[in-house]
Amino acid sequence: MDEFTLINTFFKSLTSPREDVIVGIGDDAACVKVPCNHHLLVSTDTLVSGVHFLESWDAYEIAQKALMVNISDMAAMAAKPCWVSLALTLPHLDETWLTRFAMGLKEGLDRYQISLIGGDTTHGPLSITLTIHGLVPIGKAVRRSGAKPGDIIYVSGSLGGAALAVLNIQESLQPAGQADLMKKLLQPIPRVDLGFLLQTYATAAIDISDGLGADLGHICEESHVGAHLVDSSVPIHPLVKEQQPHKAFDLALNGGDDYELCFTIPVNQQTAFLADLAKANITCYPIGCIETGSGLRITTENGNLVNCDIHGYRHF
Amino acid sequence: MDEFTLINTFFKSLTSPREDVIVGIGDDAACVKVPCNHHLLVSTDTLVSGVHFLESWDAYEIAQKALMVNISDMAAMAAKPCWVSLALTLPHLDETWLTRFAMGLKEGLDRYQISLIGGDTTHGPLSITLTIHGLVPIGKAVRRSGAKPGDIIYVSGSLGGAALAVLNIQESLQPAGQADLMKKLLQPIPRVDLGFLLQTYATAAIDISDGLGADLGHICEESHVGAHLVDSSVPIHPLVKEQQPHKAFDLALNGGDDYELCFTIPVNQQTAFLADLAKANITCYPIGCIETGSGLRITTENGNLVNCDIHGYRHF
Repeated sequence: MDEFTLINTFFKSLTSPREDVIVGIGDDAACVKVPCNHHLLVSTDTLVSGVHFLESWDAYEIAQKALMVNISDMAAMAAKPCWVSLALTLPHLDETWLTRFAMGLKEGLDRYQISLIGGDTTHGPLSITLTIHGLVPIGKAVRRSGAKPGDIIYVSGSLGGAALAVLNIQESLQPAGQADLMKKLLQPIPRVDLGFLLQTYATAAIDISDGLGADLGHICEESHVGAHLVDSSVPIHPLVKEQQPHKAFDLALNGGDDYELCFTIPVNQQTAFLADLAKANITCYPIGCIETGSGLRITTENGNLVNCDIHGYRHF
Repeated sequence: MDEFTLINTFFKSLTSPREDVIVGIGDDAACVKVPCNHHLLVSTDTLVSGVHFLESWDAYEIAQKALMVNISDMAAMAAKPCWVSLALTLPHLDETWLTRFAMGLKEGLDRYQISLIGGDTTHGPLSITLTIHGLVPIGKAVRRSGAKPGDIIYVSGSLGGAALAVLNIQESLQPAGQADLMKKLLQPIPRVDLGFLLQTYATAAIDISDGLGADLGHICEESHVGAHLVDSSVPIHPLVKEQQPHKAFDLALNGGDDYELCFTIPVNQQTAFLADLAKANITCYPIGCIETGSGLRITTENGNLVNCDIHGYRHF
């Protein structure tokens, strides 16, 4: 099987019939139509075997993870995901693996009405790079740099679950609930619907891939502000509290791979934002507020400073 | 050095000040403006160490090659390259390597006024994936599928040089001219200016990455036509004729990595096309014509059938 047969067999059918795709898979480049009143958003994420996933994992889940972390970047910018291109490097041609991979990708693409428009298939150590393209009305992309002192900081869900799944794998533990934790790790749910609401209300947003502490730190740096978190307000995954009571806050603060959104809303927009959240049946958690200065300050409810190390995921 | 310092040190300055880049490197996604009357073109190419280049090569040249093969895809669609995102997987953090890589990338980006808008940096076996974005006026992208019987087939330059460079490496030969051949392999010149002319005249186009025979074969398949080549018309790199007189035509027909364009022009457009080519000071070579049927037929000038094997580059 050559590269062209491989693409035709496994991937060509994944170009879903979006009207805005003029040329899909199978030419020197894909060609798409960007509506006049929108900006184009572009983001790239690579998953390397042995680093971001284990080769033994089901290719269906590897494909879903690769797609979901990319969609999450679109949600974090308040954009609608539309098209992806796939660069797939394979150590050998394993049709069973490719069938599962294509199935996982297709399920995720269909769920979000995203079209696979092209890519490249190469021979080498297993790795997956997706580049995702999304649309947002002009001027409505939410950046990391707009947070203002007084803004309330929110997260979109409980934290630490994916990090605990990794910890359990590293320590060869199989506690009750590990299947649920693995689902948090392998099939994160990008907060696309929340992303749309952020267009109207948020001053800054980021998705939590490196850990709340590190990622909120990016908002602070880019916005030239500090942040104050109240430790008891940070939502921690129930299994994390149960299995690692002493490490729970650390896992929630420094654990990566949760792909929840962290964002900031001006105080005078809270009422309208919360009403719209309720209407959309979305739950978010206020965890602190933006302040002047720089860096992250964590206190108890009573205002006592909590000493904790903040460290994001480091590749090197 | 963490991922963020790495990006800031080596790559952030490569976001050149294009007015259409709203958000460049450093957020969850880049944000760019696509003009109303244009379509967006997207193409992805991966270069894997040990497959597409040797780890011992100068990182400056690896970066240039990665960029040029992507730009070539834009030229093949008649598009103007605008923005790239870079997914870089590195086995270790080598600042000398990264400095050379960033320099090579910057030189290429500046030459074509392309902006690096984002990407991902991961830890793993050395590999480079670039996704390039270009613009073409609506309806002016040139596809593989438009060739019609009677159209004249052209190539934009002499062939086989890059393949001979690889052959010499494989056979540990260092003949005179190997430096020139390596330049063909490592620093292909994408035919962007020719690409613009193709918007007006070409019915089909492709860039020659897998070999003239295989790539012209793609035009035939997608256009549901056949092609007739005259062997003596195919321009062969002079060093190929000199060093491999017996294999010369095979290297020109089946050698990959030349990144010349192969395209088709209707007979009644020849005069105008050739006049515009001359005005732009570009040389192209007519090598045959499209015919009904399917597949590639190669003859001598006298019409005698030439027996030759057509095989493109195979990854697996």
